[in-house]
Amino acid sequence: MKVNSNFGKLAGGYLFPEIARRTKAWQERTGFEPLRLGIGNTTEALTPHIVDAMKKKLDILSDRATYTGYGDEQGDFALRKALCDFYLREYGVSLAPTDFFISDGAKSDAANIQELFSPDSVIAVADPAYPVYVDSNVVGGRTGLFNGNTYDGFVYLESTEENGFIPEPPSCQVDVIYLCFPNNPTGAVATKEQLGRFVDYAIREKCLIVFDAAYVDYIRHEGYPRSIYEIEGARDCAVEINSFSKNAGFTGVRLGWTVVPETLAVADGGQSVLHGMWNRRQCTFFNGASNVAQAGGLAALDEIGRAECRSLVDYYLGNARIIREGLESVGIVCYGGVDSPYVWAKCPDGMGSWEFFDYLLEKAHVVVTPGAGFGPAGEGFVRVSSYGHRENVVAAVESIKRSLS
Amino acid sequence: MKVNSNFGKLAGGYLFPEIARRTKAWQERTGFEPLRLGIGNTTEALTPHIVDAMKKKLDILSDRATYTGYGDEQGDFALRKALCDFYLREYGVSLAPTDFFISDGAKSDAANIQELFSPDSVIAVADPAYPVYVDSNVVGGRTGLFNGNTYDGFVYLESTEENGFIPEPPSCQVDVIYLCFPNNPTGAVATKEQLGRFVDYAIREKCLIVFDAAYVDYIRHEGYPRSIYEIEGARDCAVEINSFSKNAGFTGVRLGWTVVPETLAVADGGQSVLHGMWNRRQCTFFNGASNVAQAGGLAALDEIGRAECRSLVDYYLGNARIIREGLESVGIVCYGGVDSPYVWAKCPDGMGSWEFFDYLLEKAHVVVTPGAGFGPAGEGFVRVSSYGHRENVVAAVESIKRSLS
Repeated sequence: MKVNSNFGKLAGGYLFPEIARRTKAWQERTGFEPLRLGIGNTTEALTPHIVDAMKKKLDILSDRATYTGYGDEQGDFALRKALCDFYLREYGVSLAPTDFFISDGAKSDAANIQELFSPDSVIAVADPAYPVYVDSNVVGGRTGLFNGNTYDGFVYLESTEENGFIPEPPSCQVDVIYLCFPNNPTGAVATKEQLGRFVDYAIREKCLIVFDAAYVDYIRHEGYPRSIYEIEGARDCAVEINSFSKNAGFTGVRLGWTVVPETLAVADGGQSVLHGMWNRRQCTFFNGASNVAQAGGLAALDEIGRAECRSLVDYYLGNARIIREGLESVGIVCYGGVDSPYVWAKCPDGMGSWEFFDYLLEKAHVVVTPGAGFGPAGEGFVRVSSYGHRENVVAAVESIKRSLS
Repeated sequence: MKVNSNFGKLAGGYLFPEIARRTKAWQERTGFEPLRLGIGNTTEALTPHIVDAMKKKLDILSDRATYTGYGDEQGDFALRKALCDFYLREYGVSLAPTDFFISDGAKSDAANIQELFSPDSVIAVADPAYPVYVDSNVVGGRTGLFNGNTYDGFVYLESTEENGFIPEPPSCQVDVIYLCFPNNPTGAVATKEQLGRFVDYAIREKCLIVFDAAYVDYIRHEGYPRSIYEIEGARDCAVEINSFSKNAGFTGVRLGWTVVPETLAVADGGQSVLHGMWNRRQCTFFNGASNVAQAGGLAALDEIGRAECRSLVDYYLGNARIIREGLESVGIVCYGGVDSPYVWAKCPDGMGSWEFFDYLLEKAHVVVTPGAGFGPAGEGFVRVSSYGHRENVVAAVESIKRSLS
């Protein structure tokens, strides 16, 4: 049998397994436990109201009179409706419940959405970016070979210190653009105006925007949209992916959603083509998110649940502030970490990303994420994640400070 | 933007949404509630030991000292190890824990596995078959157009009354064969010898077998393998997909697994290529199954959990017997329903599948699944599912009997 040769184009390991490999090798060599500010993995407990709802769901499933099996592939209608209400209430955005598709998490949707695109589609990503946008399209055959730095045929929109890590729309014509704000990894947050330029471009060029909104609950300052649909015209050209991972701590519980509005009008077949295709995709490749997780998600959207999520996010934002202020105190130039769980730290003394990664591991026993792992424009930076117990974050920051002074 | 035009080749709606549509239209027209023997959707409650384990997991996640976020994309090692032990204990099959990949269910894996195949691979399915095998490969671009009956370029292995619904291996060379025993929809169960012929073929032709084992817990008679790895040579040529849906009632909880042995040697790159590709696929497109569901799966594999699952399966097997005996008593020719939850009933009086579906809906108010929805060789049959409360199954069978006598 012949295999999908596109897998062979994937450059090296996926970023996080590679970090795990290096860390493990260091552990085995030194016998030390590292302090972790690497993977964006939540550390604080699930909250009472949300857990209670999941336990109640288990009771419902334990009674043959109320047990249910397969749910709708698109998700429980009650949850789709609650999300729809939530968008109206919190963002002033009016959508239909059927525009929402519940999934087992943002990563799956971010990777699977490319199945809707023709193999010859031209794809643009902000650079650096969450590796899944690129890797899933490599597997889907929409790139040439990896040239040691970038994939041929891919369009990279550079996020740099000069543009405040918010790139401009492409100067050429592309079919799909992946965007994520607050950004993973740079922590940059786009204004309404900046996002508006992408929406204008997408409508003009009949291009689809895939907007990853996984971190919008971290926005605490005015003037930054928390849904791309706050931008006029976005419902004609954008899908939005989000999840309960980073606000309700569902990284392991698994629950997310994607908005694919029926009004989308950028596909070559016209309106509602993409909506119908995603619906068909989910009905064929997926059997719905866990009903236990969905019960938790529903609770996370009510008043008590929202308050619980807010405290969780506050906690991580507090960590981010400690990281940023700590690194800055020893002269590290930092971006992000405000309205975002990620601090984007510039490597000192002209070090490269992996070099600084190794330095921090060796000298401070701290794991961070090399910026270069998110794309070529990430070179010269590391991502420092605020996900950790406060005491460990403080210890890691103090250790980094000692190692640099 | 240009869309994946393969979606346009998909014939009609996915089977079950189409059944739902017709049933809903009938309900709205008549005001009656139908009796359901259609979708293979479990109806009996989750069991105490398994629910208890999931609640305990929620307690663990509610404590910041024991909370965990992302698990391994491949699944919790404890669960992979428990499955490995289970295969040895119950099937006499020796595999490695790392050969097991935990997922959110068999449907996802059955649909996603085709991402590993080259676009020009020749695919064979037993006909009739679970629609996902075919539809996922249509979306993946491995077929021509639908000619009103079959997809051009696909190889259909006909399961007929004459061959006892166990086809022979293809007479031509194919790259991948999808098999499922106990079979959905025909209820046929393959012997070691019959499966052995497929394994021999696969090794000779360097062809991959995708074996769907979702119903093996329904096998209660000797002589039928419950894992394809009971056949010598299978670990060189077969992946096996299974789930907790039909034995533990996890259709809504969502949990499954796929075995991709490192010893697989049919891919053009040689041994362990497919193992590495699936690992990469899962790391890139998936973020692990729900930790709550995985805790339940672990409990389902211990002694108490296995006993609970056995009673659940006993219950549905009892239903299957009632269905088969009831239909036979009014002269319907039936297959399956023994060692399988599905009865494959021949439509009387030369009726077609959808015709008999409509007949039973109108005259008996019973929903079944038209055999033709599973492929052309399913024409002239309906699948009657044993998933239902006993009293409803009895009522539906009595109603069918009245409508036919």
